[in-house]
Amino acid sequence: MAERGLLIVFSGPSGVGKGTVRQEIFSTPDHKFEYSVSMTTRPQRSGEVEGVDYFFRTREEFEELIKNGQMLEYAEYVGNYYGTPLTYVNETLDKGIDVFLEIEVQGALQVKKKVPDGVFIFLTPPDLGKLQERLINRGTDSKENIAKRIERAKEEIALMREYDYAVVNDEVSLAAERVKHIIETEHFRVERVIGHYMKMIEETRLSR
Amino acid sequence: MAERGLLIVFSGPSGVGKGTVRQEIFSTPDHKFEYSVSMTTRPQRSGEVEGVDYFFRTREEFEELIKNGQMLEYAEYVGNYYGTPLTYVNETLDKGIDVFLEIEVQGALQVKKKVPDGVFIFLTPPDLGKLQERLINRGTDSKENIAKRIERAKEEIALMREYDYAVVNDEVSLAAERVKHIIETEHFRVERVIGHYMKMIEETRLSR
Repeated sequence: MAERGLLIVFSGPSGVGKGTVRQEIFSTPDHKFEYSVSMTTRPQRSGEVEGVDYFFRTREEFEELIKNGQMLEYAEYVGNYYGTPLTYVNETLDKGIDVFLEIEVQGALQVKKKVPDGVFIFLTPPDLGKLQERLINRGTDSKENIAKRIERAKEEIALMREYDYAVVNDEVSLAAERVKHIIETEHFRVERVIGHYMKMIEETRLSR
Repeated sequence: MAERGLLIVFSGPSGVGKGTVRQEIFSTPDHKFEYSVSMTTRPQRSGEVEGVDYFFRTREEFEELIKNGQMLEYAEYVGNYYGTPLTYVNETLDKGIDVFLEIEVQGALQVKKKVPDGVFIFLTPPDLGKLQERLINRGTDSKENIAKRIERAKEEIALMREYDYAVVNDEVSLAAERVKHIIETEHFRVERVIGHYMKMIEETRLSR
C-alpha cells in the first residue's frame, strides 16, 4: 500500500508537559512515526547536535525559507525564529511514514490551515490548579509570570476546539499510551482505507 | 462528569469472525463497556440463559415492541426475529456506560440512521480469498452457498463507507486490541470533551 503517512500535530499550552510526553512516546519502540526536527536561528548550544536537536540556520536562511513558502509553520520568540521545514515533512509522508510534530498552539493552528487532514492532538492539564502547581514547582517563573501563563493557558485551552483529540496529562506514561493509541486508530478510519478495500473487491478473482 | 456513554456498533460480513473477536474483547478485564444482549423469537435452546444469551420473547411481544418503536434495529432470519431492544441501550448510555452491539451489517445501517453519533466499527477479512478459506474450513456451507456468501461479503464490504473504522481480522487478539483502542480514543475526541474543559476554564478560581 502506497498510503501516505499521517501528519500528527501534538500541541498544548506552555508548561503542560508536551516535551516529556513526546520523549516517553519515542522512548518505547512500538512507534512507527518519525519526529520532525525543528529549525531555529538561535545559536547552537554545547552538546546540541545539528539535525537531532534542531536544524541550526542563519536568520537570512530562515527568512529565505519563509519567503519561498518552505516553512510549514513558524514563530518568533525572544528574537529567534523557530519552525518546521516543509521538505522533510513532505518527503517523509510521501514514503508512507507518519510524521510527529511537537509544536506550540499558535503553530498548530497554522498547520491546521495548510494540512486540514492532519491528526491534531491537544495535551491538556487535568485542571488549571494542577498547571499552576506544576509551574510553581518548576521554579523558573515569577508569581506574576505564572499568573500570565495561566491566563494564556486558558486562552489556549479554548482553542482546543480546533483539534481532533484532547489527551489529559495526568500521568506521563498514560498520556503517552493514549497518544500512541490515537495514532494507531487513526489508521483504521474508513476514509483512509476505503480505497484499498474497494480495489480488493474489484480485483479479487476467486477459485471456484 | 455525567457524560453519556458511547454506542459502539461492531459489525462486518457474515463469516468474518465478529463473535470470536467480541468474545476476546469481553474476556479481558480492561473494558468499560457493556454488551447489549439481543432479543429473539426463536426457541430457547438447552443451556441458554434468558438475559445472557438472548432475551427470549414471543412473536406477539416482539411485534408489539417493533410497533411501539422500541427496537433500535431488528431483522427476520428463517422465520424468527432478532433485534436490539432500545430501553436497555438507552438506560445504560444514560448511566454514562458505553454499550457494545455486535450485529449484522443491515442492522448496523438501521442504527446509523437513528444514532449517527455512535461509533461504527467494521470488521473486515484481510482479503476475500481468506474469507473463502475460512468458510470452507468451517465446513457448514455448500460450495454454492460459499460462493453466495462471498458475493454478499463483497456487497457488505462496499457498505464499509457508512462506518467510522475498518479493523482487519488477521488475528483475533490483534483485532480485539484494535477495537478496544478505538473505543478508548473515541472518548478523547474533542467534540465529546470540549464542554467539560470550557466549564473548567470558566469555573476555575486560582490561588494568587
